[in-house]
Amino acid sequence: MERAKIRLSIEHPLGPGQAVPLEPDQAHYLFAVMRLEVGARVALFNGRDGEWTAEVVEAHKKRGILACVEQAAPQLDPPDLWLLFSPIKKERTDFIVEKACELGCARVLPVQSAFTNSARIRQDRLQAHAKEAAEQCLGTFVPPVEDLQPLAKLLEGWDPSRRILWADEALVGPAQTLADLPPGPWAILIGPEGGFSPAERASLRALPFVTPISLGPRILRADTAVCAAITLWQSAIGDWT
Amino acid sequence: MERAKIRLSIEHPLGPGQAVPLEPDQAHYLFAVMRLEVGARVALFNGRDGEWTAEVVEAHKKRGILACVEQAAPQLDPPDLWLLFSPIKKERTDFIVEKACELGCARVLPVQSAFTNSARIRQDRLQAHAKEAAEQCLGTFVPPVEDLQPLAKLLEGWDPSRRILWADEALVGPAQTLADLPPGPWAILIGPEGGFSPAERASLRALPFVTPISLGPRILRADTAVCAAITLWQSAIGDWT
Repeated sequence: MERAKIRLSIEHPLGPGQAVPLEPDQAHYLFAVMRLEVGARVALFNGRDGEWTAEVVEAHKKRGILACVEQAAPQLDPPDLWLLFSPIKKERTDFIVEKACELGCARVLPVQSAFTNSARIRQDRLQAHAKEAAEQCLGTFVPPVEDLQPLAKLLEGWDPSRRILWADEALVGPAQTLADLPPGPWAILIGPEGGFSPAERASLRALPFVTPISLGPRILRADTAVCAAITLWQSAIGDWT
Repeated sequence: MERAKIRLSIEHPLGPGQAVPLEPDQAHYLFAVMRLEVGARVALFNGRDGEWTAEVVEAHKKRGILACVEQAAPQLDPPDLWLLFSPIKKERTDFIVEKACELGCARVLPVQSAFTNSARIRQDRLQAHAKEAAEQCLGTFVPPVEDLQPLAKLLEGWDPSRRILWADEALVGPAQTLADLPPGPWAILIGPEGGFSPAERASLRALPFVTPISLGPRILRADTAVCAAITLWQSAIGDWT
């Protein structure tokens, strides 16, 4: 059976014969926008049960019921990698969340550092963005996107068994070989435009669980650094290997 | 001396004491938009002579002259890496050109393949985008962006001494170790949404200079694949090592 073209990230459990009631906005999207009718097929995933092909059983303006037919793809969870990043301009922040989802991060934590320009983020909008990225890229997992928090406070309560790979823009020169990174839980840390302050850099350097890396001889925008750092980590010790 | 904050990519030669006449749009930007006056400093680069700090000597509405004071950074050319990509939606195509410049490509070639949706591109706009990326990211090199051409025709006349790293989205599974790639001139090839057609994939596989790689177990958008593939190449045999 061909995979359904429309994909929805939902909360409901999925399994053989399982009936799935739709939220009003999902029913609106499927039946008003996409004009699906009873019998049409949709792909569903909930971050736990893989992708399921489901059939429209009831279609109303603001409600509807789908029924699971069969599993179309197994669940694919990302490795235990978090992304810590400083929010930048709106489109580039959206982009960072999208790329973290596509490239395979388990959790996204926006952090506020000395040179961060934003005092707040729209967490709900960023979460919706992560969901959309998973829906569009055949993902079965949507990383939770947390609310903005101060980096210093986050590091104070940090579990040292989770190592931090810090893209230090002051490290000019050859990129470090990442093949030697120990396995286990990790987080990638990317700073805002202008990087980290001297005081922040000194604290980061003093933390035993922080590994600074260079991302080559060019200055990268924060969103580019996110893509490059996740790629290097994934291909060294993540699930790209 | 602190590096000048405003950076301009120009064509004119740069060197000690060199006078640099400005184009009308550059003069407008510096003197009307940014309100620089005689004596102000600007960073200039031309893709050959590194970055030079220059001083405003004459400032008029639509013309002006700068004089080079001293070299602020040496020329940093990218490795001999080309990017071949299929244009997608406008913002994402802009993004691909920007990332190719930031991550270090020497030449950008938009190509038309079976599933490419665009029949034309705005080459001038994409070139301006590459220039802006270099200006903003302290680059000293702007990769030339070519006009759209059919992939099949490009491959017919291809110099086989330039190898092609092809991100083959049908290669699901572990990513290949790139450390074994031979040095020399390379090009990265990224397809459109939906990838390449079965006929295109068969031709690509038959070419002795094409190396297919996987970019991990997730489906990546074309713009994400561009960032990931350049990062892997740069850290394996480019100038990030």
